[in-house]
Amino acid sequence: MGQLTATRVEHDLVGDLEIPVEAYWGVHTLRAKQNFDITGTQLSSNPHLIRALAHVKQAAARANRELGLLNAERAEAIDAACERIAAGELHDQFIIDPIQGGAGTSTNMNANEVIANLALEIMGHAKGEYQYLHPNDHVNLSQSTNDAYPTAVNMATHFATQPLLDAMKVLQDSCLAKAAEFRTVVKMGRTQLQDAVPMTVGQEFGGWAVTLGEDRARLEESLSLVTEINLGATAIGTGLNAPAGYAEAACRHLRELTGLPLTTSPDLIEATSDVGAFVHLSGVLKRVALKISKICNDLRLLSSGPRAGLNDIQLPAVQSGSSIMPGKVNPVIPEVVNQIAYQVVGHDLTVTMAAEGGQLQLNAFEPVIAHSISLSLKHLTNGCLTLAERCIDGITVDEAALRREVENSIGLVTALNPRLGYSASTQIALEALHTGRGVAELVLERGLLSAEDLNELLSPERLANLSD
Amino acid sequence: MGQLTATRVEHDLVGDLEIPVEAYWGVHTLRAKQNFDITGTQLSSNPHLIRALAHVKQAAARANRELGLLNAERAEAIDAACERIAAGELHDQFIIDPIQGGAGTSTNMNANEVIANLALEIMGHAKGEYQYLHPNDHVNLSQSTNDAYPTAVNMATHFATQPLLDAMKVLQDSCLAKAAEFRTVVKMGRTQLQDAVPMTVGQEFGGWAVTLGEDRARLEESLSLVTEINLGATAIGTGLNAPAGYAEAACRHLRELTGLPLTTSPDLIEATSDVGAFVHLSGVLKRVALKISKICNDLRLLSSGPRAGLNDIQLPAVQSGSSIMPGKVNPVIPEVVNQIAYQVVGHDLTVTMAAEGGQLQLNAFEPVIAHSISLSLKHLTNGCLTLAERCIDGITVDEAALRREVENSIGLVTALNPRLGYSASTQIALEALHTGRGVAELVLERGLLSAEDLNELLSPERLANLSD
Amino acid sequence: MGQLTATRVEHDLVGDLEIPVEAYWGVHTLRAKQNFDITGTQLSSNPHLIRALAHVKQAAARANRELGLLNAERAEAIDAACERIAAGELHDQFIIDPIQGGAGTSTNMNANEVIANLALEIMGHAKGEYQYLHPNDHVNLSQSTNDAYPTAVNMATHFATQPLLDAMKVLQDSCLAKAAEFRTVVKMGRTQLQDAVPMTVGQEFGGWAVTLGEDRARLEESLSLVTEINLGATAIGTGLNAPAGYAEAACRHLRELTGLPLTTSPDLIEATSDVGAFVHLSGVLKRVALKISKICNDLRLLSSGPRAGLNDIQLPAVQSGSSIMPGKVNPVIPEVVNQIAYQVVGHDLTVTMAAEGGQLQLNAFEPVIAHSISLSLKHLTNGCLTLAERCIDGITVDEAALRREVENSIGLVTALNPRLGYSASTQIALEALHTGRGVAELVLERGLLSAEDLNELLSPERLANLSD
Amino acid sequence: MGQLTATRVEHDLVGDLEIPVEAYWGVHTLRAKQNFDITGTQLSSNPHLIRALAHVKQAAARANRELGLLNAERAEAIDAACERIAAGELHDQFIIDPIQGGAGTSTNMNANEVIANLALEIMGHAKGEYQYLHPNDHVNLSQSTNDAYPTAVNMATHFATQPLLDAMKVLQDSCLAKAAEFRTVVKMGRTQLQDAVPMTVGQEFGGWAVTLGEDRARLEESLSLVTEINLGATAIGTGLNAPAGYAEAACRHLRELTGLPLTTSPDLIEATSDVGAFVHLSGVLKRVALKISKICNDLRLLSSGPRAGLNDIQLPAVQSGSSIMPGKVNPVIPEVVNQIAYQVVGHDLTVTMAAEGGQLQLNAFEPVIAHSISLSLKHLTNGCLTLAERCIDGITVDEAALRREVENSIGLVTALNPRLGYSASTQIALEALHTGRGVAELVLERGLLSAEDLNELLSPERLANLSD
Repeated sequence: MGQLTATRVEHDLVGDLEIPVEAYWGVHTLRAKQNFDITGTQLSSNPHLIRALAHVKQAAARANRELGLLNAERAEAIDAACERIAAGELHDQFIIDPIQGGAGTSTNMNANEVIANLALEIMGHAKGEYQYLHPNDHVNLSQSTNDAYPTAVNMATHFATQPLLDAMKVLQDSCLAKAAEFRTVVKMGRTQLQDAVPMTVGQEFGGWAVTLGEDRARLEESLSLVTEINLGATAIGTGLNAPAGYAEAACRHLRELTGLPLTTSPDLIEATSDVGAFVHLSGVLKRVALKISKICNDLRLLSSGPRAGLNDIQLPAVQSGSSIMPGKVNPVIPEVVNQIAYQVVGHDLTVTMAAEGGQLQLNAFEPVIAHSISLSLKHLTNGCLTLAERCIDGITVDEAALRREVENSIGLVTALNPRLGYSASTQIALEALHTGRGVAELVLERGLLSAEDLNELLSPERLANLSD
Repeated sequence: MGQLTATRVEHDLVGDLEIPVEAYWGVHTLRAKQNFDITGTQLSSNPHLIRALAHVKQAAARANRELGLLNAERAEAIDAACERIAAGELHDQFIIDPIQGGAGTSTNMNANEVIANLALEIMGHAKGEYQYLHPNDHVNLSQSTNDAYPTAVNMATHFATQPLLDAMKVLQDSCLAKAAEFRTVVKMGRTQLQDAVPMTVGQEFGGWAVTLGEDRARLEESLSLVTEINLGATAIGTGLNAPAGYAEAACRHLRELTGLPLTTSPDLIEATSDVGAFVHLSGVLKRVALKISKICNDLRLLSSGPRAGLNDIQLPAVQSGSSIMPGKVNPVIPEVVNQIAYQVVGHDLTVTMAAEGGQLQLNAFEPVIAHSISLSLKHLTNGCLTLAERCIDGITVDEAALRREVENSIGLVTALNPRLGYSASTQIALEALHTGRGVAELVLERGLLSAEDLNELLSPERLANLSD
Repeated sequence: MGQLTATRVEHDLVGDLEIPVEAYWGVHTLRAKQNFDITGTQLSSNPHLIRALAHVKQAAARANRELGLLNAERAEAIDAACERIAAGELHDQFIIDPIQGGAGTSTNMNANEVIANLALEIMGHAKGEYQYLHPNDHVNLSQSTNDAYPTAVNMATHFATQPLLDAMKVLQDSCLAKAAEFRTVVKMGRTQLQDAVPMTVGQEFGGWAVTLGEDRARLEESLSLVTEINLGATAIGTGLNAPAGYAEAACRHLRELTGLPLTTSPDLIEATSDVGAFVHLSGVLKRVALKISKICNDLRLLSSGPRAGLNDIQLPAVQSGSSIMPGKVNPVIPEVVNQIAYQVVGHDLTVTMAAEGGQLQLNAFEPVIAHSISLSLKHLTNGCLTLAERCIDGITVDEAALRREVENSIGLVTALNPRLGYSASTQIALEALHTGRGVAELVLERGLLSAEDLNELLSPERLANLSD
Repeated sequence: MGQLTATRVEHDLVGDLEIPVEAYWGVHTLRAKQNFDITGTQLSSNPHLIRALAHVKQAAARANRELGLLNAERAEAIDAACERIAAGELHDQFIIDPIQGGAGTSTNMNANEVIANLALEIMGHAKGEYQYLHPNDHVNLSQSTNDAYPTAVNMATHFATQPLLDAMKVLQDSCLAKAAEFRTVVKMGRTQLQDAVPMTVGQEFGGWAVTLGEDRARLEESLSLVTEINLGATAIGTGLNAPAGYAEAACRHLRELTGLPLTTSPDLIEATSDVGAFVHLSGVLKRVALKISKICNDLRLLSSGPRAGLNDIQLPAVQSGSSIMPGKVNPVIPEVVNQIAYQVVGHDLTVTMAAEGGQLQLNAFEPVIAHSISLSLKHLTNGCLTLAERCIDGITVDEAALRREVENSIGLVTALNPRLGYSASTQIALEALHTGRGVAELVLERGLLSAEDLNELLSPERLANLSD
């Protein structure tokens, strides 16, 4: 192989390795690539994380330069390299499996090496000439994996949450639009799957919009936890090898580079071992997933039929439903979103297990935490947009059929409760049920209320509390 | 207090404690009672475990006597004490919280003390005169908590599973009875909540019976894992302080005392740290719960209505459904069983976390494993009986309404697929959907099939594959 | 039985039942008692919920009176009855299993009946003379289970969280006290269980105090979600049968009665079906549990030994550790708290499943949600107090042994990194590892640094960043 | 676009779509591709599933031909096409996201279309000339997604489990080799992280080998569930549109094609809605994951240090451990395997949620079940091999240091228990602990036992039960 691919030799504590000359990554990356061959995927599938790592290294270089630890040439070369990587260059050089041991060390080493080699080229040197600029001594200066990596994961999580917030807003707006469209369409409300009392279709969609809005607020709230970073903690939070003033300077540069409202954690010992921000965020994502799953469950229930189901609403047909049953249309969009929700719940458990596994001054399992949350964010984002655009927006109703359903319902008797009392109303309800007759008809027959009173009491609009 | 309650003084490595003279438990029990005040419940709520512990101690005493380690007087006193405790006496002396640290040591100590003091009385001594018979030196002879307790938990689990197997059989039989009752009642089958093709109500109940039968088989299969015990392992599986032949003798006596097909684990080191049998059993219980939850979900769906729902079946009314909606009948029995299922799934996760937490030669968290599984077994047992007796047994159907539903369905077109092809059938289905007309009517109108052919093809009995 | 126990006959839609004359509960309660026989426990085990229910009914009566729906006599009798029940009377009349179908209807009915019968006695009538004051028509007036019950569960959750916040403060203070006590005690920090760089024991305890403080903040934050109530929503959120102004009046009275900062949800449709506040709170409790479990894991690790373990700290002996190994002291308190944490994680999953199961206008599974959260709150409260008082407060260290550990460590080489570079430092570390020699010794031998420089660089206090 | 890429037009119930002429997939596939854009991955990442689908279609074609439903030309073309696809051709044509709605319909349609178009080419026709061979009418003949897809998923699961069984065997053998290598190396056993009594390193590794063997047995047992298939059930299990004899014939051909011991489920209604086999298998995989995670936890504990930890064993260095701490070697391989285990536990919860969500005659969420299990199988397979080859195989011990640890331990006193009694032994242990002196020394000093007796009793080999 040596004669086919030109290589350079790099060294670590295990020994020597040949690195292809065109590779920006080095020995530590290759070692990790060999050690962790689990999922068949690479860090490059999470561009938010690579961008965040680049900015961490960039901010560190700027702080180190300010504090006199790094000369201008090296600092500028690192800065320029990070800028280009943050902008999307060389993502294909992040080749390690996202599921890895070492608490993110390999990811950090991968970033250090790629940045160092790109910076070396910017400085006019060849890749691998680390005597001029070293991945650990210069790119990683004043840092440890244990502060650089968590800081990057925090930021990447923040980056990846914004698209989800936007997608949830799209879904919320779709629900609001339908709430307006169906504002006066009366239907039966149901509790415990049993016919209850009337409401409007608009109220149902409006409730979903409200619940999504609440979840967006929770999600934004949880972001405040990930803006607290531990950069400057170095290995265990004591800040060993980071000079005085470094943490503040690095955080300031990071704020400027990213626009995120980052702050340095007041207790770096605690911050370095704690993954509570991810537990919290993952819990909130689980809540988002459960809410959206419930909406999907309702959509599937409400569109059941077309003839032997509830059939309150009709979902748009987006594909053929069956390979054997011609013309069958299935609620495939809610179904796929349900499955996303189940994944998010599963990912939350993975995060839970990993969080519980942290020991002493570090949680070694942050890679699987970061990976799980990044998948949840991505899938939920796609799910919200899909649900809005391929399902909610195209929903229609048959207003006349829904009104007949209400007028025919036994639940109307509830409205008579204040006039007839619970016991007498129960008798009417049971007779309606057993005879198949209508509530109004039975009340009139027994002379319990006048027709005028009944009309007034049983107006579906009044029952649904539909103001003008 | 001393003057009000007569006490005796007992001693442990922490110091002295006053024990009420009437108490059969001693200093180790009281210490644990004070240390663990978590749930407000006591070991006595799990009689299966107390019975199992008594038999373990009884078998150990018999083995120790056989091997010449215990003299006849002590052995017989312990034997008699255990016999009475296994039969239900003194359960109120098991006062420790089931959630406890110490890997079951306190439970084992509680048993040792109660047995010792009862045996002392049988021997004509006063409680606390441990010079004649000592909780650790004699009752616990050749044992450690780490073999005696897991063995007892295994056995208790076996004892508590039998009632669940019986209850599942009751539920299965209820489903079978309804399968027979509704064997020829045709209804619409539904996939993805959309009308699919016809089937019978009997087939639906029959499927539930089958699935319950399969779960009973899995549950029985998993019991084989808990019949493998580690008695004789003592502290870590090396059998230190247990004489040669002890493990075999104790296991033999335990088999005779309980009738369980117990065997000694072939690798006692592994067996002492491993809780895999509980992980497996708990996983099977989760499966049972999911199956039963699915049945309950279906029961609630199928009985939705009475007018704006599927209304395929009617559940018996067992209580008033609403404090405000008169006459409302809710599926309260399936609902309570769903909730049991959710608890079982939660307990399984508790078991999962506890199992993962085992370290080196022992899993210190077996108490919460034992407690969680015992709750799952108890709740599922009650749930199965409740579901059978208060719900399934009283279910009725409206056969005529169900047949109208089938005849009116678009799903009938599937049966024409082999004759008309997928594309043409799709056209018929869509037209039926959009016009509200019937499939048969449209096929005849277009002259695609003769009336005879249609009648033959669309016979609900044929469609449901209902042989004679 | 009729001749032995005097009974009165009550009626519901299922038929007649004989109720013991001394019972304050009535037919709906008895029906539920018979239907739900699952756990062997009763609602009375959750006094927070009974108190909350009483206040809801009291506030409703006051609002109904204000709005002219309830006359003074009945309103005052209900008010007085609720006052006495909230104060702790008649809790034994709440006999239903907390795991129940019906979305809380039975719990609500139980409250309605007990309050009605106590109010009847206050009015001078006999229990059961509902013509004077009716459980549904008067006690439940302007309410539905679907608003009264969730409101009560929200309040009960708030009540039960306060003791947990207090207990967490106790635990936090215990950690702070130890942080102060061990402020200057140097020890090795460890990452990934490998020796890393020095820190102090005080920093370690201080970090735990910080993490507990953060969790208290999250928990208080999550309480704001449960102060939003849906009283006035009635059956599905449309407010059917509740008069204009009722929701505001009832909420105002409830605020006055309880001191809680309650507000009425802006969208009652959404609020009635949504259990998101519980999902959120349960998620936060899971986080609390994971943090505390991590602390317990660390306590057990750090106290491992006494001779073949880390032995950084010594836990107080609170009971004998083993039935076979004399003198063994085990970390039983952290162990029991770990198990509580595993239960809380399990309960969170139960809540998750139940939340996902909500359908259309209601979540029928709120009883198991309420039950699971109440258990988590109770167990965590007891766990925090136990951990503080029976473990943390008694922890000691061997300062000299810990300092020897630091001086002997290879991790010291990290401090030389900025001076020697990563590559040279790695060589020193490996030689130290393979020869068993000390880092300082090797550096001096090679003449890499002067003794003065070394002393300065390797000062444990400096390494631990221990200011003055 | 039309002028750049040559297309053909295909039609479904939604309308027309242009398909690139070179595509073997058709309109249903493209529709699904557009509808489900969630994970960024494709079905092609699971070759086991594609192979299984091809064999299902192949077996169906053979059965249909036998039963006279398919002519020889079409049957042979389908057969040949399936053969080539099963062998690995055209996997890139399976372009749909594995997370999809529709219960697998899109996957089935994708297979039908690719097979049809390849078969058309084999027959000498152009892709898209479905009048000669139609994806639904011929490739899907006598099938529904609801039997073809679950059957394929069952088979794919079986295919993917075999490599895991092999990898577990490799890991088991690595443990066995170390058990032999360290057979006589005495060390301290620990319970609850506290020093307990002696054992050998070989016993520890031997226990892991045993536990892995047990898990392999469970996994093989669970495979028997997935060999029961529902082919012939068609849409809901009634077998509508499948001729008499079809199910048997198709199963027979499938057995011949794959070598798997497949059988047809005795109740096709039950089998079509039930996903219990996956719940069971996933539960077993969770158990496997927990066992392996426990082994990794132990490996990390046992190798903690090198100086301030247990340091019982030394893991091979496979990469540099830290970007800041030179020479640090971390247990990165056990760490990555722990994270795999946490993922498997998370996937099991996803499966759990999806299983609970099945409704009536089908579980619409089988795609996420299949996907989750396939990831668990793949990651565990890679994890076992990695753990064996990059960690276990290279483990070393320091025998002399371990023996000193034993001789210095207090736990030795346990061996004196039968001679001295529990109380006296406790005193010795406490004095040893508080004075730092040795157990043997104290016993001799007090004249409790002779030196000869002591030597005999305290022989580490005897204590560890190390025969000859």
